[in-house]
Amino acid sequence: MALQGKKLINNPDDVVTEFIEGLVETYQGLQYLDGFPEIKVVLRADAVGGAYDKVAVISGGGSGHEPAHAGFVGPGMLTAAVSGDVFASPPVDSILAAIRAVTGTMGCLLIIKNYTGDRLNFGLAAEQAKSEGYKIEMVIVGDDCALPPPRGIAGRRGLAGTILVHKVAGAAADAGLSLADVAAEAKHASEAVGTMGVALSVCTLPGQVTSDRLGPEQIELGLGIHGEPGAAVVELQTVDVVVEHVLKQILSQETQYLPITRGSNAVLLINGLGATPVMELMIAARKAVPELQLEYGIAVDRVYTGTFMTSLDMAGLSITIMRSDENILQRLDAPTKAPAWPVGSEGNRPPAKFPVPVPPSPSMKDDEILSERQELSKQGCMLEAAIEAAAKELIDLKDNLNDWDSKVGDGDCGTTMYRGATAILEDMKTRYHLNDAAGTVNEIGSTIRKVMGGTSGILYDILCKAAYASLKQNKNITAYEWADALEASIAAVSKYGGARAGYRTMLDALIPASTVLKQSLKAGDDPVTAFIASSEAALAGAESTKQMQAKAGRSSYISPDHLVSIPDPGAMAAAAWYRAAALSVKNKLHASES
Amino acid sequence: MALQGKKLINNPDDVVTEFIEGLVETYQGLQYLDGFPEIKVVLRADAVGGAYDKVAVISGGGSGHEPAHAGFVGPGMLTAAVSGDVFASPPVDSILAAIRAVTGTMGCLLIIKNYTGDRLNFGLAAEQAKSEGYKIEMVIVGDDCALPPPRGIAGRRGLAGTILVHKVAGAAADAGLSLADVAAEAKHASEAVGTMGVALSVCTLPGQVTSDRLGPEQIELGLGIHGEPGAAVVELQTVDVVVEHVLKQILSQETQYLPITRGSNAVLLINGLGATPVMELMIAARKAVPELQLEYGIAVDRVYTGTFMTSLDMAGLSITIMRSDENILQRLDAPTKAPAWPVGSEGNRPPAKFPVPVPPSPSMKDDEILSERQELSKQGCMLEAAIEAAAKELIDLKDNLNDWDSKVGDGDCGTTMYRGATAILEDMKTRYHLNDAAGTVNEIGSTIRKVMGGTSGILYDILCKAAYASLKQNKNITAYEWADALEASIAAVSKYGGARAGYRTMLDALIPASTVLKQSLKAGDDPVTAFIASSEAALAGAESTKQMQAKAGRSSYISPDHLVSIPDPGAMAAAAWYRAAALSVKNKLHASES
Repeated sequence: MALQGKKLINNPDDVVTEFIEGLVETYQGLQYLDGFPEIKVVLRADAVGGAYDKVAVISGGGSGHEPAHAGFVGPGMLTAAVSGDVFASPPVDSILAAIRAVTGTMGCLLIIKNYTGDRLNFGLAAEQAKSEGYKIEMVIVGDDCALPPPRGIAGRRGLAGTILVHKVAGAAADAGLSLADVAAEAKHASEAVGTMGVALSVCTLPGQVTSDRLGPEQIELGLGIHGEPGAAVVELQTVDVVVEHVLKQILSQETQYLPITRGSNAVLLINGLGATPVMELMIAARKAVPELQLEYGIAVDRVYTGTFMTSLDMAGLSITIMRSDENILQRLDAPTKAPAWPVGSEGNRPPAKFPVPVPPSPSMKDDEILSERQELSKQGCMLEAAIEAAAKELIDLKDNLNDWDSKVGDGDCGTTMYRGATAILEDMKTRYHLNDAAGTVNEIGSTIRKVMGGTSGILYDILCKAAYASLKQNKNITAYEWADALEASIAAVSKYGGARAGYRTMLDALIPASTVLKQSLKAGDDPVTAFIASSEAALAGAESTKQMQAKAGRSSYISPDHLVSIPDPGAMAAAAWYRAAALSVKNKLHASES
Repeated sequence: MALQGKKLINNPDDVVTEFIEGLVETYQGLQYLDGFPEIKVVLRADAVGGAYDKVAVISGGGSGHEPAHAGFVGPGMLTAAVSGDVFASPPVDSILAAIRAVTGTMGCLLIIKNYTGDRLNFGLAAEQAKSEGYKIEMVIVGDDCALPPPRGIAGRRGLAGTILVHKVAGAAADAGLSLADVAAEAKHASEAVGTMGVALSVCTLPGQVTSDRLGPEQIELGLGIHGEPGAAVVELQTVDVVVEHVLKQILSQETQYLPITRGSNAVLLINGLGATPVMELMIAARKAVPELQLEYGIAVDRVYTGTFMTSLDMAGLSITIMRSDENILQRLDAPTKAPAWPVGSEGNRPPAKFPVPVPPSPSMKDDEILSERQELSKQGCMLEAAIEAAAKELIDLKDNLNDWDSKVGDGDCGTTMYRGATAILEDMKTRYHLNDAAGTVNEIGSTIRKVMGGTSGILYDILCKAAYASLKQNKNITAYEWADALEASIAAVSKYGGARAGYRTMLDALIPASTVLKQSLKAGDDPVTAFIASSEAALAGAESTKQMQAKAGRSSYISPDHLVSIPDPGAMAAAAWYRAAALSVKNKLHASES
């Protein structure tokens, strides 16, 4: 295919310049240096000029590792960062400009990753600066643990462990230490850190063709951060296996790269390589911490999980371990305003976290099955009759509802309602305290949610919960309280479900019912008359859905032509149970009066 | 191909659980709730129980959007986050558990993204919690600006703008405001925010096959965060064009989604969708800020660039704009310990940033061309003769050096040295202050770096700079100071270049020369004798490289068999110029004595 890698960029030659421009747009505290874009130096806006009264800490190197290093500039970390082009060491003049810009009488520490280009360019700049009278020290970080100890000049590559060295040095400088002491702490940290990476994909340079080096089911172990091939290509494995392997390599007794043994303390850094989702980094952290603690007997003092030192758009991660001691922890915990340093990992970790218990419901009803049939009040009897009538009506209407629904929806409205109604009749015998109207409505909601599922189940449960919350505020429940509860229910269903009048839903039955109920009661009608009138409005409302376009639920995907003359089954079901309840109340009162 | 998407995970069913475990391992201040892993709630470790004395702010929704929402839990932002499975709303019981765990007497605000599942499940939980006596409010964010205003129930999708609403609400709650006031601020913020996304790739659900919906040169505009198709598929464009288009859509006068006009203030959020490198996000920020300011007349108060609300491993970004006012800025700037909230964007931005000037070199030599020939001291004459002899020797040796180098390197050693030597002879006439030995050595370094390039050029410049720094400490420069300078030079080249004795480099000539020079002077030999003996040691050292394996430079890639009997050309060059300089000093002294 040989296609250019997909990137959200402009001219591939401008990526570093434009990155820096975006960076200083984003962060108030960062500034760039004159000579830009030839000179690519990001520095603290507040540490400019020879007046800086602490040791300046400068890092840098090739670009393509963002947020490193410019993202780590800020009080408490780097004073300046010097960027080269992608994967190319910055020129001496840029480094020298950075040194001159931020170095005061306390001097300057250069921290670089161990690559020949960086060693030479930063080295020459250091010598030049020294000859100009600046006090300069340099620490070179080579934390790679993937390869056997090299014989010659190259040494181990500098990888994400460099970020931890930045932090130690930056905090030491911020604490006012001398150049010699800051350099000594940085050196100590650089000798206590090891890193190894694993890649799912090869990075693509801006404007270049994406390599097909790595097969679709292969991963690369022990890679660098410049697209160079890794130490080994293996089949894709679970992250647990990958983490085990990487830790084993870093802590190898053969290479003895790290001065860490059973009983040591350490900090852990899980670093995304550019295109790795946070989810996957956290999953790796989840494995690495107990693995270090239980398999290697290493106490993990801090965990840093995030994207710190990348390889352009590479998918994968690296793991870094640094031996920790009191001083290193103090440096790592010290506050910094560097934007890319992680927040929330500072402070001592508990040895293990135990889940927080959930408090029980403060007003939970006794959930036992009723031991014996309660003596029903007059209100209780009426409620029982209404529920029974409403449920039976839905059971009778099953086939009609399914029929309508098969024409405008997925054809199961009747079956779903039948399931809810049957369960209500069942639970009513054993679980509902019918003398407590509010509680009963609440229980009906729970029954419905248990058996109905789907959107209608949850909407009916919301309806019941809202009615319950409304009803339970009152000791005496009259028709007025029922009317308020209906209104509150409709509001809740509308709020959470999103439907309003005319959307072709059950609300097209319930809203007219609620309106008429309130009007009728306000006009002085007796409750039964009002309830009956209200139920007629519900029926009329449900019938009127035949002329409505659907704006909710599955029907909204169906052409309006198909909907004409078919009522919304949800509205019909609501009207039906409401009407049946109203009629049963009327009959019950009639019976008790006669 | 139909291959599973490559991910660093274990069982695809466990990704959410394992993400949360990694998250609480990483962050001290985060905790998870009992009932885990069925109940997936992350909460502040310090805000547990009914004793919490501020308004609790809870968010949540389906997973796959990491760090949202759990990464935004912390003092000053969310009190708890409820996670569902990937792209699936959390169940009511989980939401209710979160509410019960963190809600005190001040009540609880639920902030959700506008999706039916979230509305219903959080809605039901809210009603249930209310019925249990909790004070609950809910704000639904629908900030999508990609699609025309929907007619019906669905409404606009909730996207990354939700994060800004979290921050506003979290800070208001932290300030001690009442539930009604916190909810009002959240609502106000939700009505002032708009978002639109662009994708380079389709996200892949854990364990699923990667979709090939998007061609290799296509991007998708106006997508959601659940893998659903975007509003349009277009050819890959520059990020500047993409940003222009997205801003136009968000600020469309047709949809009028945002209450923003010319003269308004706003904050900008550039959000990575999961697999987008920081570099590309910053490049987008670089375009968006001036575009808003100059094209739309909108003052950009804050810029947040990073990864906040993702769609698993999708490459791409979304842009969010929120109208800002004094109160919103105060809420956004308020400190928080939520790990995923960005650091360094708070505080007023300067209207524009101007590059910081670089201070001039504090001890820079006058860089003018010498106007007239200076009167040379005896030392100056000697130095002139030595430089001339050394340079001429290298010019004479050009072909030999190239010949050796063609067998063990890239064949240009002679040409490179010739270039340096020629330039030195040229610059010596016009630029070197030969009476100032230190300054002259410094200038030689600059000449070399100007014309030689590559590793050898920079190493020779380092050599000269280190010698200069050593020499310039002294007023009188005798043989002893030259010996010290040679030693310092070798140390610098070794330090930055990484080579040591026996690595088959120029140091194999210079190290013996330095050793013999020091020994001879210490033994009381006169300077000329010592210098000559030293130069013989340099020659012998260079010859000895014939037997060495290469540990540096290009020769290190060549089989040792090929190296036998060929000297290292760099060492031979160093020995040659050193020997020529020594002989010229001897002749000069002899001539002046006779």
